[in-house]
Amino acid sequence: MYYYKEELINQIVPDKPDPAAAKVLQEALGGQFGEMRTMMQYSFQSSNFRGNATQYRDLIRGVFLEEISHVELVQNTINQLLNDSGKSFGVGNAGIDAAPLDEALKHANPHHFIVGAQASLPVDAGGNPWNGSWVYSHGNLIADLLNNLVLESTGVLQKTRIYEMSSNKTLRETLGFLIVRDNAHQNAFAKALETLGVDWGKLFPVPNYDINKYPECRKFVEMGYHNIQFNFRLDDTRIAEVYQGASPSRNKGQLLVTPPPMGFPVPQLPDMPNEHSPGLQDMFV
Amino acid sequence: MYYYKEELINQIVPDKPDPAAAKVLQEALGGQFGEMRTMMQYSFQSSNFRGNATQYRDLIRGVFLEEISHVELVQNTINQLLNDSGKSFGVGNAGIDAAPLDEALKHANPHHFIVGAQASLPVDAGGNPWNGSWVYSHGNLIADLLNNLVLESTGVLQKTRIYEMSSNKTLRETLGFLIVRDNAHQNAFAKALETLGVDWGKLFPVPNYDINKYPECRKFVEMGYHNIQFNFRLDDTRIAEVYQGASPSRNKGQLLVTPPPMGFPVPQLPDMPNEHSPGLQDMFV
Amino acid sequence: MYYYKEELINQIVPDKPDPAAAKVLQEALGGQFGEMRTMMQYSFQSSNFRGNATQYRDLIRGVFLEEISHVELVQNTINQLLNDSGKSFGVGNAGIDAAPLDEALKHANPHHFIVGAQASLPVDAGGNPWNGSWVYSHGNLIADLLNNLVLESTGVLQKTRIYEMSSNKTLRETLGFLIVRDNAHQNAFAKALETLGVDWGKLFPVPNYDINKYPECRKFVEMGYHNIQFNFRLDDTRIAEVYQGASPSRNKGQLLVTPPPMGFPVPQLPDMPNEHSPGLQDMFV
Amino acid sequence: MYYYKEELINQIVPDKPDPAAAKVLQEALGGQFGEMRTMMQYSFQSSNFRGNATQYRDLIRGVFLEEISHVELVQNTINQLLNDSGKSFGVGNAGIDAAPLDEALKHANPHHFIVGAQASLPVDAGGNPWNGSWVYSHGNLIADLLNNLVLESTGVLQKTRIYEMSSNKTLRETLGFLIVRDNAHQNAFAKALETLGVDWGKLFPVPNYDINKYPECRKFVEMGYHNIQFNFRLDDTRIAEVYQGASPSRNKGQLLVTPPPMGFPVPQLPDMPNEHSPGLQDMFV
Amino acid sequence: MYYYKEELINQIVPDKPDPAAAKVLQEALGGQFGEMRTMMQYSFQSSNFRGNATQYRDLIRGVFLEEISHVELVQNTINQLLNDSGKSFGVGNAGIDAAPLDEALKHANPHHFIVGAQASLPVDAGGNPWNGSWVYSHGNLIADLLNNLVLESTGVLQKTRIYEMSSNKTLRETLGFLIVRDNAHQNAFAKALETLGVDWGKLFPVPNYDINKYPECRKFVEMGYHNIQFNFRLDDTRIAEVYQGASPSRNKGQLLVTPPPMGFPVPQLPDMPNEHSPGLQDMFV
Amino acid sequence: MYYYKEELINQIVPDKPDPAAAKVLQEALGGQFGEMRTMMQYSFQSSNFRGNATQYRDLIRGVFLEEISHVELVQNTINQLLNDSGKSFGVGNAGIDAAPLDEALKHANPHHFIVGAQASLPVDAGGNPWNGSWVYSHGNLIADLLNNLVLESTGVLQKTRIYEMSSNKTLRETLGFLIVRDNAHQNAFAKALETLGVDWGKLFPVPNYDINKYPECRKFVEMGYHNIQFNFRLDDTRIAEVYQGASPSRNKGQLLVTPPPMGFPVPQLPDMPNEHSPGLQDMFV
Repeated sequence: MYYYKEELINQIVPDKPDPAAAKVLQEALGGQFGEMRTMMQYSFQSSNFRGNATQYRDLIRGVFLEEISHVELVQNTINQLLNDSGKSFGVGNAGIDAAPLDEALKHANPHHFIVGAQASLPVDAGGNPWNGSWVYSHGNLIADLLNNLVLESTGVLQKTRIYEMSSNKTLRETLGFLIVRDNAHQNAFAKALETLGVDWGKLFPVPNYDINKYPECRKFVEMGYHNIQFNFRLDDTRIAEVYQGASPSRNKGQLLVTPPPMGFPVPQLPDMPNEHSPGLQDMFV
Repeated sequence: MYYYKEELINQIVPDKPDPAAAKVLQEALGGQFGEMRTMMQYSFQSSNFRGNATQYRDLIRGVFLEEISHVELVQNTINQLLNDSGKSFGVGNAGIDAAPLDEALKHANPHHFIVGAQASLPVDAGGNPWNGSWVYSHGNLIADLLNNLVLESTGVLQKTRIYEMSSNKTLRETLGFLIVRDNAHQNAFAKALETLGVDWGKLFPVPNYDINKYPECRKFVEMGYHNIQFNFRLDDTRIAEVYQGASPSRNKGQLLVTPPPMGFPVPQLPDMPNEHSPGLQDMFV
Repeated sequence: MYYYKEELINQIVPDKPDPAAAKVLQEALGGQFGEMRTMMQYSFQSSNFRGNATQYRDLIRGVFLEEISHVELVQNTINQLLNDSGKSFGVGNAGIDAAPLDEALKHANPHHFIVGAQASLPVDAGGNPWNGSWVYSHGNLIADLLNNLVLESTGVLQKTRIYEMSSNKTLRETLGFLIVRDNAHQNAFAKALETLGVDWGKLFPVPNYDINKYPECRKFVEMGYHNIQFNFRLDDTRIAEVYQGASPSRNKGQLLVTPPPMGFPVPQLPDMPNEHSPGLQDMFV
Repeated sequence: MYYYKEELINQIVPDKPDPAAAKVLQEALGGQFGEMRTMMQYSFQSSNFRGNATQYRDLIRGVFLEEISHVELVQNTINQLLNDSGKSFGVGNAGIDAAPLDEALKHANPHHFIVGAQASLPVDAGGNPWNGSWVYSHGNLIADLLNNLVLESTGVLQKTRIYEMSSNKTLRETLGFLIVRDNAHQNAFAKALETLGVDWGKLFPVPNYDINKYPECRKFVEMGYHNIQFNFRLDDTRIAEVYQGASPSRNKGQLLVTPPPMGFPVPQLPDMPNEHSPGLQDMFV
Repeated sequence: MYYYKEELINQIVPDKPDPAAAKVLQEALGGQFGEMRTMMQYSFQSSNFRGNATQYRDLIRGVFLEEISHVELVQNTINQLLNDSGKSFGVGNAGIDAAPLDEALKHANPHHFIVGAQASLPVDAGGNPWNGSWVYSHGNLIADLLNNLVLESTGVLQKTRIYEMSSNKTLRETLGFLIVRDNAHQNAFAKALETLGVDWGKLFPVPNYDINKYPECRKFVEMGYHNIQFNFRLDDTRIAEVYQGASPSRNKGQLLVTPPPMGFPVPQLPDMPNEHSPGLQDMFV
Repeated sequence: MYYYKEELINQIVPDKPDPAAAKVLQEALGGQFGEMRTMMQYSFQSSNFRGNATQYRDLIRGVFLEEISHVELVQNTINQLLNDSGKSFGVGNAGIDAAPLDEALKHANPHHFIVGAQASLPVDAGGNPWNGSWVYSHGNLIADLLNNLVLESTGVLQKTRIYEMSSNKTLRETLGFLIVRDNAHQNAFAKALETLGVDWGKLFPVPNYDINKYPECRKFVEMGYHNIQFNFRLDDTRIAEVYQGASPSRNKGQLLVTPPPMGFPVPQLPDMPNEHSPGLQDMFV
């Protein structure tokens, strides 16, 4: 069973509304290598695990738990980017020529303005809905670990590319955090395969990005977040039997299981009248 | 952030392997009205919530938290139904005519035997992958609540139909539990609309099933599970401002928020050699 | 605007319930070459028509109008094949071992028993949902006419194949009628291309089936239905400027526009208690 | 069987070409809550109806019939918005640098210029094809009515949002008409549930838009179109047994079944040479 | 078995980077009437061919072989259009405000910058992934030939429309070549049907484009490429039993089977550091 | 450009018709880890390759070329399994009760009998169409190689599972061949990563199947096919710079590039009258 505390795993840094940035950031939420995929893939691999080497099951489940809060983080980031992006002035607009949501005609995902009230969707940067066929639970430990390694590597790869698409601080803060966490998870699966006999040499991290170019990543690396696995279990776990010792990556350091980080407040979004998105107010107009 | 204790929200009752039952039970996991849909729909509605009537946000999020453990419960139930359904005798089979996985050619979902090692998948009873376009987060409180009401009603409707497809105890215990919990969630959203002025008369529950015909449901009804909302929050929640008072259904009773139920052990599945699903053993053959 | 009289375009011949037949007949409703495709394809081509050669627009629209009633006919035929296919005895079943809907575990489309109450769905014989990408409105008259010709030819081809899958009279009567009507529509588009200069020689009909092998078709051929286009317009139409003269097929005869055929009653389906498919009764249990 | 008179259910108001508006208006045609969905959902619910409370079947079918003409209306509106949006000068363009269809590279749906000849498509505002899995025919009267209520409410919600994306009169006139008609259909299903015992209080209309902000809606409200159901039946119907009496919405008034409205001419689109969309001319170049 | 020589079937003409052109050109690669479809459709029809009229099998297979190199040609053209379209300056970018891949936020397909490193994808102009349901292998010779004729005609139709969207020389050269080759394949299938008795009159080519408007096509027409079928077989083939004699199109000429054309070099793309697309360099940073 | 010799890369061993086996074997053709995926993935990676380390490009392209003939091999195997599986007696069947294609109602994929004439389709074992979103061309050499390694490993894993579903010799011979060839390709990508510094220890092969249990594999292993890469290039290639030296797998041996194997005849399928699948005969009935 799953428990919750209303805290985000990282902060939402305010910057100006940016629907085009929101559109491409959807890839990190509902894309083939986004957080919904990692969450569901590790959920299925955890439940479908066979055999008694449960230290690996605990490793996969441990990453799964963090991914649920990553989904929540990206949803909130997209909402921040979309909020106030339509020029809202009153319930409905009415004016002859006014078209307060015309932003959606330009570089936005129009569904951000039609299907929801300027809010996140389970789709990718191209607007394609998330698809269950992207979840792999092969039922063979090595195949699953290798697949997870590709998943985390591609996660970093795509996030660094999205990072370079916009200098919006809201977008970059979240991506910076997730890039470093994906590296930690890349280390988790690389280390698991190391315990099965692989020597990775200098292969990881993939991609081999220069930390100096990503200031938002740097602070997390300095906090050691690339070598830490947060533990969200309320009971015992064998995760540290795998996630320990020297990092399998060229970036060195010691792998360490720690308690979850300090949480950040979940933003509260205002009513959005011309999206007809009131809460109770609608009843009393 | 999300926390976890390795306990199932209901028990897995053993019965004989039954891949045909596993195939149709997938609807309750990866179908349009299955637990993945409820989980993701309430996740998006929670993060995308607008306005300060956060008692409704807490209600939606409260149901979301329980749905994560429903996903886990159905995954484990399907795995129990599939386990040992191929006649396994050794690593590979080799014999001239033996075809230990030929079950997959008959009434099973063949992907249960090919894509995974006799384990759950994010697909529906027809084998269609789960699809993000089934998640609705309209961004208007009333529209969201009405949609959730349809979702929970259809959840019960479909589960009673699947219940009547097989007398397998593994399948029926899980469905019995989920039917009653869906009723509790139907009450949650019906009650929320009642606070906005609706009088449902005798409309609910939908469907209006006879509890005497579903013995697996009866025990949960006797425990009051149809009028209880479990609280998985580790911090404060306003959920009881909505989920309280007389039930909006003909089945009467008082709505009550309670702590989570006692948990049940998560089964450990054996290695499955002719699916090439070993854990560590593969390394030492 | 569209008007309606509650009459089916052909009769529903009763025979025993047959969910396996219902499953494959879905191809004729929601398959790539089924009636939903023809209906929507001709709808889009009618509205999107360019230029003043409106005799061709009227031809396409004329076929469109008939396809709406074909959709209704196949829906009703599938319902007839499914009705009573679960052994229904009372509201819910309750018995320890009874599983009145277990038919769905065998050769049926399980969604026929889960998603609806033993009723038709917008899917094909494999259970794949109907898809808008199958509708072609190329916007070039010749390309559209050629595409329609392939569509009608493949319609006959697939229906003759489904016909040979079951000797169920409910299925065969509907297919027999539709095969002959598809031939009439094949003639419509072949003739339209003939007016643009093509001489088809002995190419049509495609496929070149032997009418003696399809007794359900024979009666309709004897009524001349393969050379008739029904006119469902309440106003004037130029359709007969194209649909007239010698048939473009080897089967000869003269093409003729006539009033619609005599209609047949639309069946009324009974309540289905263990599908929780009551109408009003549910309110008074 | 279905009959037709070549008249649109509302007028097409001319304004300047606007491919970006056409792109988002596709949501109202091929989106999850668009007219193709309502048309097909009510078609399936009509044919799949169980039980003898046929006044509800007649209600659902009555709305279905109107939706066919809504599909036609939106197709024609999109065509009007697209027409002349490429700068057409002769058959083909040839010039060294001219690119008369380059509009498609900007804010348009490129398929409007490639797949068809600047004409409507069965896709949504994001370009996703219409999908049969969006059609719900649950086979339980209450579940179907609740689902239809959500469908019509979301239909209004999305259309008011699209309305605020563009001040183009062609787009706004059609949306204004459809918003009011969706309200009438919302009333139809709300009323049907009222006959089953629900008292909606002040819940409807959803969303609770201010008519003063939508001048294109006002004229239809003044004609009472929000409380009227048009009757397209050529035979008897029991629809008025349900659709009668006081409106279930706060907007008050009496529900009334009336004959169809006066029709409007279906526009005739010109040839579009650089789309190679001639009719007969192609043969004589 | 299939053999290869690293040569493109036509040249890549350099012009400036143009991601918007790359986006729409995807239709010719991964669209419903693009080169992946023709390649796979003829592959399936070749393997699934029934009967001993193998001259038609050889015709279909002959076209199939050329389509593999068309796929390669369009992939390389898209890559050329995308290359250098992000302003690349070093590994990562880092600067406070720099966003070197922000092109992806505007008129590009964002997946061109996220999923791959500014390179081709198996999707259409709207970003929808290629889908196997678009491949038709009806198993009836006439139906297959008619379908192929529609496929090639629509191929030309769509390519002429894409041609008019951009004056970029890279795009136009490839389209010019493919338009003429599609005409040759249109002739192939029209001729095959002619051998079965059809007289096409003046129907083809479809569309009836004016060669004077497409200078990039003219040179290939002057080389006779519209009436030639290249032979990529290393063994005997009966293709010339069908592909010979007078062209079935108004453009006249004699059909001729010839050896493949002279090949062109396959471009070598540079490393793309801010896409993290190095080859070996990544290992030595 | 691509050349062809009409020879299969392995033999088709005759056995009795088996539509259920054909259904599951589709996974190896149109499934997520089937031959269409490998073919298209390596096609895109070859064309999209960046940088001058072309020995890796030649390796990927070399595997791509073989995959085209794997597609052809599986298509022909499925056709052999389906051929004669309907009891064919004459053109059409006509008899009152005969239903010669009723096999499709049981354990077959019904589309094998409806969409084609008992022939292969671009779908997986569950009937889902092949999808372009399964093709990964990440544009980062290491990510691409790791992904390919997962792809080949899962290819073997799934094929050994399908092998155990049926003792049909037609199915097993093809799978035996492909399993060994997938191992060779697993070696190819594992070796490529070895050249970048990885030491795999005893990780491969994945899965670690016992060759003694797969007699159809044994003969190919004895011929060394697990360590050989066939060279289908008609020009020079640098593939042997990577594919050489000690195998990276526990099965040892030396990697070697060799000419293609001896080819086998492509079967010729008979006409199938009650599928209306004649070639020329249809014209003269």
